Amino acid sequence: MDTQWLDQIKWTVDGLVPVIAQEVGSGEVLMFAWMNREALKQTVETGQAVYWSRSRQRLWPKGESSGHVQQVKDIRLDCDKDVILIQVEQVGGIACHTGRHNCFFHHLEGGNWVAVDPIIKDPREIYS
Amino acid sequence: MDTQWLDQIKWTVDGLVPVIAQEVGSGEVLMFAWMNREALKQTVETGQAVYWSRSRQRLWPKGESSGHVQQVKDIRLDCDKDVILIQVEQVGGIACHTGRHNCFFHHLEGGNWVAVDPIIKDPREIYS
Repeated sequence: MDTQWLDQIKWTVDGLVPVIAQEVGSGEVLMFAWMNREALKQTVETGQAVYWSRSRQRLWPKGESSGHVQQVKDIRLDCDKDVILIQVEQVGGIACHTGRHNCFFHHLEGGNWVAVDPIIKDPREIYS
Repeated sequence: MDTQWLDQIKWTVDGLVPVIAQEVGSGEVLMFAWMNREALKQTVETGQAVYWSRSRQRLWPKGESSGHVQQVKDIRLDCDKDVILIQVEQVGGIACHTGRHNCFFHHLEGGNWVAVDPIIKDPREIYS
């Protein structure tokens, strides 16, 4: 695999790039995570999103526990070549570990963060 | 101004939070940038996006040079409280410093990043 396209990305000093996952069709921003070189390479090769878990310091194939994998339909890089935007189909319709459709469910209302989106499935069921 | 909602955000060690700006209506992800506490406070107070420029190490009221300000219609915080998603109206229809509608114009095609979106206005005209 020619890796010139990987070399062109401006990785952080930690070898990472921020990634925004947007849902095909709805256009909803599902989540934000990070990839390293290997994660992005595997994402392209497999067609499924693989992130780098900074907390666990290991590759994180999205959905490995939950089954809520992301089928990647499109990959874009920004003007400064240091941020990636992927278009995904979210299997199971749940991207968030809280059991919600997407991760951005805290809405700023009158100086408070209010959880406004429903939990589709109890996380205890998802990760059991 | 009660700042409890600011305290609830999990800022990076540098005191920043990543911010995704999405366009109201089109749903397009326009850009990705960072805010510090003061930038987010000013964003909420003024209703216009104010970022923190890491390269220039100063507050960056979006559109200060170009006039391409962002009117903020909605602010959300993710599950881990460390990423923000804002819904904006993009004045001038140009979010990117290259004169394009949004910053994510490099499309991965056959192992190459291809610039696929048109330049709406020459940057030399925008920043003259």
